[in-house]
Amino acid sequence: MALVVQKYGGTSVGTTDRMKNVAKRIIKTYDAGNDLIVVVSAMSGETNKLVALANEMSEIPDGREYDVVVATGEQVTTGLLSMYLKSLGYKAKSYQGWQVPIITDGTATKARIESIDDARIRADLKAGTIVIVAGFQGIDSEGNITTLGRGGSDTSAVAIAAALKADVCEIYTDVDGVYTTDPNVCKEARKMEKVSYDEMLELASLGAKVLQIRSVEFAKKYNVDIHVRSSLNENTGTMVTREDKEMEGILVSGVAYDKNEAKIAVMGVPDKPGIAAKILTALSDANISVDMIVQNVGHDSMTDFTFTVTKADLKQSLLITNEVAREIQAKQVVSDENISKVSIVGLGMRSHAGVATKMFSALASNGINIQMISTSEIKISVIIDEKYTELAVRVLHETFGMQC
Amino acid sequence: MALVVQKYGGTSVGTTDRMKNVAKRIIKTYDAGNDLIVVVSAMSGETNKLVALANEMSEIPDGREYDVVVATGEQVTTGLLSMYLKSLGYKAKSYQGWQVPIITDGTATKARIESIDDARIRADLKAGTIVIVAGFQGIDSEGNITTLGRGGSDTSAVAIAAALKADVCEIYTDVDGVYTTDPNVCKEARKMEKVSYDEMLELASLGAKVLQIRSVEFAKKYNVDIHVRSSLNENTGTMVTREDKEMEGILVSGVAYDKNEAKIAVMGVPDKPGIAAKILTALSDANISVDMIVQNVGHDSMTDFTFTVTKADLKQSLLITNEVAREIQAKQVVSDENISKVSIVGLGMRSHAGVATKMFSALASNGINIQMISTSEIKISVIIDEKYTELAVRVLHETFGMQC
Repeated sequence: MALVVQKYGGTSVGTTDRMKNVAKRIIKTYDAGNDLIVVVSAMSGETNKLVALANEMSEIPDGREYDVVVATGEQVTTGLLSMYLKSLGYKAKSYQGWQVPIITDGTATKARIESIDDARIRADLKAGTIVIVAGFQGIDSEGNITTLGRGGSDTSAVAIAAALKADVCEIYTDVDGVYTTDPNVCKEARKMEKVSYDEMLELASLGAKVLQIRSVEFAKKYNVDIHVRSSLNENTGTMVTREDKEMEGILVSGVAYDKNEAKIAVMGVPDKPGIAAKILTALSDANISVDMIVQNVGHDSMTDFTFTVTKADLKQSLLITNEVAREIQAKQVVSDENISKVSIVGLGMRSHAGVATKMFSALASNGINIQMISTSEIKISVIIDEKYTELAVRVLHETFGMQC
Repeated sequence: MALVVQKYGGTSVGTTDRMKNVAKRIIKTYDAGNDLIVVVSAMSGETNKLVALANEMSEIPDGREYDVVVATGEQVTTGLLSMYLKSLGYKAKSYQGWQVPIITDGTATKARIESIDDARIRADLKAGTIVIVAGFQGIDSEGNITTLGRGGSDTSAVAIAAALKADVCEIYTDVDGVYTTDPNVCKEARKMEKVSYDEMLELASLGAKVLQIRSVEFAKKYNVDIHVRSSLNENTGTMVTREDKEMEGILVSGVAYDKNEAKIAVMGVPDKPGIAAKILTALSDANISVDMIVQNVGHDSMTDFTFTVTKADLKQSLLITNEVAREIQAKQVVSDENISKVSIVGLGMRSHAGVATKMFSALASNGINIQMISTSEIKISVIIDEKYTELAVRVLHETFGMQC
């Protein structure tokens, strides 16, 4: 008998019929003698609908109230799934974040899990109850409802698996696992059998939407094996796990892209210390994450400062950046939404030189101009014109021997 | 400066535009220097949508999980309305039932409010915050989400007004107040200026859908004046308040009807003590309210036992009744959904004889057969064939001098 955590995403619970299908898998796992905690997302489309309502009420919705609104999507799924299991004669019980409780910090819309009280859930498991937990949400120390950001249900599942020392954390989704790149863009993308936490972190942060990045951080920190697999079949998926020798042999394990970023350039910035910090501090005070940052070498005591944020944060970021720009007497602030980030990731890069050169040459020989570059130990990302995204992905997939 | 409780129903908050309209009234009240607690329902249609989902998952949905699902409707409204007020620069804060907390008993889907902790709300009011509370919901002593039954938001509003000793409780709806009868059925129905708690209790329980009955019970118990008025205009509505001399002068103050009941008849019941109790106990154990009850005089040691329940409870009531019928060896159980209840209500009945005779004669002379009769000190109800409902209402409205 094992303790299993299963997480079902929005597509898997997108209709009442699909929920009934999910219930079959839950029952199969439970009937095999396992203790079972199920973490669910909102029915697909629901969160978007709720976000649209919020945007109708306010251009930049208040974070606390935004969380109150969007947290209802997961709540509905927990109730529906539990009542179905009960109607079939199984013991089941829904939990909202505040009922577990899943304690988070107070950062509305992007809260971080701080602790999980396992007492109530343990008691239910002991009594043979299937526990259905609302993903994506928690409660802060002031008693406010918080949400964990888009895809946060993955993090909920991994955090619960960590807190209860589950034997396995299965993340069910509408794809068969983690691929070398997006199969919609490149037909010859292959499913990976396993991938290290670090590679998955880079892939997740780069826009491979299979797992939320926080969930992989959690899994790495607490050593939780994540099995990413499809809710539509019985195929083995991809295991996200500790790094091993075998993984290091692969130079580039995946190509990721992200069309969800926008570029902001502050032009004609006085080239003196502290200016970059001033802009970035103002953004981080507003809880906006900046991804890539480039500052050109200055001339005439002036420099340009460029960075990227998510498209969702663009409007607010521009407000803030314009304010700081006036303050520091920069000449101009311009933004561009028509960009995308394309990246290659692989543990093998650590010990191989020349990967970047090979990447840049491949892009150049296909007429793709690189606007910004960012690198880490195991990944290289470039910002390019959005319209070249698919081409770049295919070129890189082929260049690094992934047969696209 | 007064403490005002305002409750807005589903139609008043049915779209984001309507919510913005409601916000205007809230702001007007707040800017006039009042402390303000706003109780809101789910956006119109939302609760029905959630109930439909629940019914797709289970024929008789588990009560606890049903409440988890339907409570989300009000939660969404609180968040949306609060974020809008905040976007206009006002201090506002949403509260779910469990956050107040509004403590109820553990009866899922029809919970009763036991107590309200006013500490957090008081602190917010003191800080100048407009408090937005989700109607219809609470939390039981086990930490489960509970709901108060259809129309429960009225009860939430009155209970909060009572707990915080508000100066007035305004119930905003899509009609101008309480009418002598349904204006859709009888064009000459008049708006009442005021109506006593007892009359309103009878009217509410008889299907005049303006106020939930529990809310009037609460108002009577704690002496809360309820101002029922329209959210679409500035007209004075109807004050539901203590009885006064003037009210007693009116023989019949209103005609109500209810098409929402169904009749169950247990035929050929052995005529011995305890049979009626056996049936009714089984139903009340399942938390089903029985309204009218008639037991015919027996013949051949047999009797018929007839009662009404809401149409929503009919399916479950029949299951239970059939079981008991087998046990007590009754001959047959039959049910009829095509009935309606028509009633006249008035404090004046207490001191005037002959009201019933006048009512029955009026119906008879219009060819309307009476199937069941039930009376109280201030009302007379009859069950008739559903198709005669409107005719009966018009006849009675005219008979008792309400000029229809």
